[in-house]
Amino acid sequence: MLDSTSQTLQSTNLMHNAAITRPPLAKAVRPVTIIAAPRLVSRFGGTIVLASETFQYTGSFKFRAAYNVASRVAQDLLITASSGNFGQALAYACMLLDKSCIVVMPTTSAQVKIDAVGQYGGTVELVDVRVKTREQRVRELAAEHPEAYVASAYDDPVVIEGNATLGEEICRIPFPLDYIVAPVGGGGLTSGIVSAVRRSGKPIRVIGAEPLLANDAARSLKAGRIIRNETESETIADGTRTLSIGQHNWEILKDGLAGIVEVREEDIVEAVRLLFGLANLKAEPTGALSLAALLASPELCRDHVVCCVISGGNVDPALYRNILAG
Amino acid sequence: MLDSTSQTLQSTNLMHNAAITRPPLAKAVRPVTIIAAPRLVSRFGGTIVLASETFQYTGSFKFRAAYNVASRVAQDLLITASSGNFGQALAYACMLLDKSCIVVMPTTSAQVKIDAVGQYGGTVELVDVRVKTREQRVRELAAEHPEAYVASAYDDPVVIEGNATLGEEICRIPFPLDYIVAPVGGGGLTSGIVSAVRRSGKPIRVIGAEPLLANDAARSLKAGRIIRNETESETIADGTRTLSIGQHNWEILKDGLAGIVEVREEDIVEAVRLLFGLANLKAEPTGALSLAALLASPELCRDHVVCCVISGGNVDPALYRNILAG
Repeated sequence: MLDSTSQTLQSTNLMHNAAITRPPLAKAVRPVTIIAAPRLVSRFGGTIVLASETFQYTGSFKFRAAYNVASRVAQDLLITASSGNFGQALAYACMLLDKSCIVVMPTTSAQVKIDAVGQYGGTVELVDVRVKTREQRVRELAAEHPEAYVASAYDDPVVIEGNATLGEEICRIPFPLDYIVAPVGGGGLTSGIVSAVRRSGKPIRVIGAEPLLANDAARSLKAGRIIRNETESETIADGTRTLSIGQHNWEILKDGLAGIVEVREEDIVEAVRLLFGLANLKAEPTGALSLAALLASPELCRDHVVCCVISGGNVDPALYRNILAG
Repeated sequence: MLDSTSQTLQSTNLMHNAAITRPPLAKAVRPVTIIAAPRLVSRFGGTIVLASETFQYTGSFKFRAAYNVASRVAQDLLITASSGNFGQALAYACMLLDKSCIVVMPTTSAQVKIDAVGQYGGTVELVDVRVKTREQRVRELAAEHPEAYVASAYDDPVVIEGNATLGEEICRIPFPLDYIVAPVGGGGLTSGIVSAVRRSGKPIRVIGAEPLLANDAARSLKAGRIIRNETESETIADGTRTLSIGQHNWEILKDGLAGIVEVREEDIVEAVRLLFGLANLKAEPTGALSLAALLASPELCRDHVVCCVISGGNVDPALYRNILAG
């Protein structure tokens, strides 16, 4: 009844992971978890598969990029700005590689994300984004530490390549996918997925899912140039509060995305609930954006096979309880 | 960075799953999801890996047994008693195999489980277990439907063999496990795992995790014979409210288990929270029993490699919210 190769794969990975207290052994990312929940499929009508990165090391896809960056730069100190998940990922990657890092985070970041950066050995620098942008604080820190490498959470070819490994895994699914839907913040994830899909030669269209409250990417796509938000959005999808898409990401996304679905906050919340109730999956709001896009645009899954990328699962228990309460 | 075999495995499985609306294609169980969350490992000190069945079809390991039973008996109508997860699993297995089933459930079952049985096409028969046992109601229904097969959720060699597939998968992890810890209700899961471990020839000890409030299995092991609870327990771990271990299970467990850890309700609740917070895993209370056993007996993971079986994830949102509220 079972394919014996699965255990080999999972366990190869497991061996790295089990070695968490012996850092240098953790050299690979965890493969994406593919879930095709029958009741979720029934709810939407089309064929939906979930590609979940909630069990990736540090709880989100960001580890793919972070590990790629930390292992490829020569510097021993890395500085980054992050709403949380890239910070955790870079902190853990640096711990595994015997490096150190400073993570600039907005004061509004989810507390679990702030705590986690610290637990993974990173130094947290909180910034009130109403007073000073994260980028400004990063520049100050870089001036204080000229020996450090400043890592972008998205606007960097090495980040995009790290994230492309997720796209490669999804493209290897031997099932004809029509769409891959993934959240858009700085554009690091979608540009990685678009790169992988292009290399695969498969006719899969990549759709971005972005909160209406932080729709700079959707507006950029319409305008044909990068449009920046004036201030950081207060969308519940905290992973998409970046001010704009990165330049490297834009070069790939401007004609690489088949579209962006702009998602209302209530659809994000409902998507988190549906993943909980019909797929047993704990997703953070940003992670649920792709399913929320199907609530906003149900025609996407009508007669189509759609892969929704659930990008991460790190969410404060208090917020999650409120979401479940409806 | 990635092992390409993983996708093959997962996708083979996916193809079955994506075919949910075309029932006969779903012929295999989903492989267990192996998760080794670094922060959870740090919290306990030993090396813990999670073997999660929360993404198994119908959300728990029970589908392994249910599909094995439904596909191997000649009858087209199956009747069973279940606190919920076996009911869902049998209903879905019967749907996939164009059979029908009646599921006798206690009125105290989690509402999500009652709903799910119906959504999977099963007929639910609620029974107030203070008035009549599930077994009595099953006997009545069997008399009404002499053409039906009465399926036990645990006390049946075909059930045990179905569950043994999970043990086989865990045994194939190429990492030396000292312990496998799994919840004990009727004993179907642990007897399946013990059978698989014995066949593997590996020196892995299997430990049962049972609520102190429903400790018939622990008392049976001490007494050397099956001890029955007088009435169904009100433990939060609703999957273990069965009155006693089954006879077939007992024959395997009486000298197959290395021990049973009796778990307090507060440790079950704390384990659900830890899985949420440190592993991004949504588990039902019964599913968290194995991790709760490590809270109760921390010496189990000291200098040992322990695989905790997370048996299922089907939990009412209201209950889950209360648990997270702590």
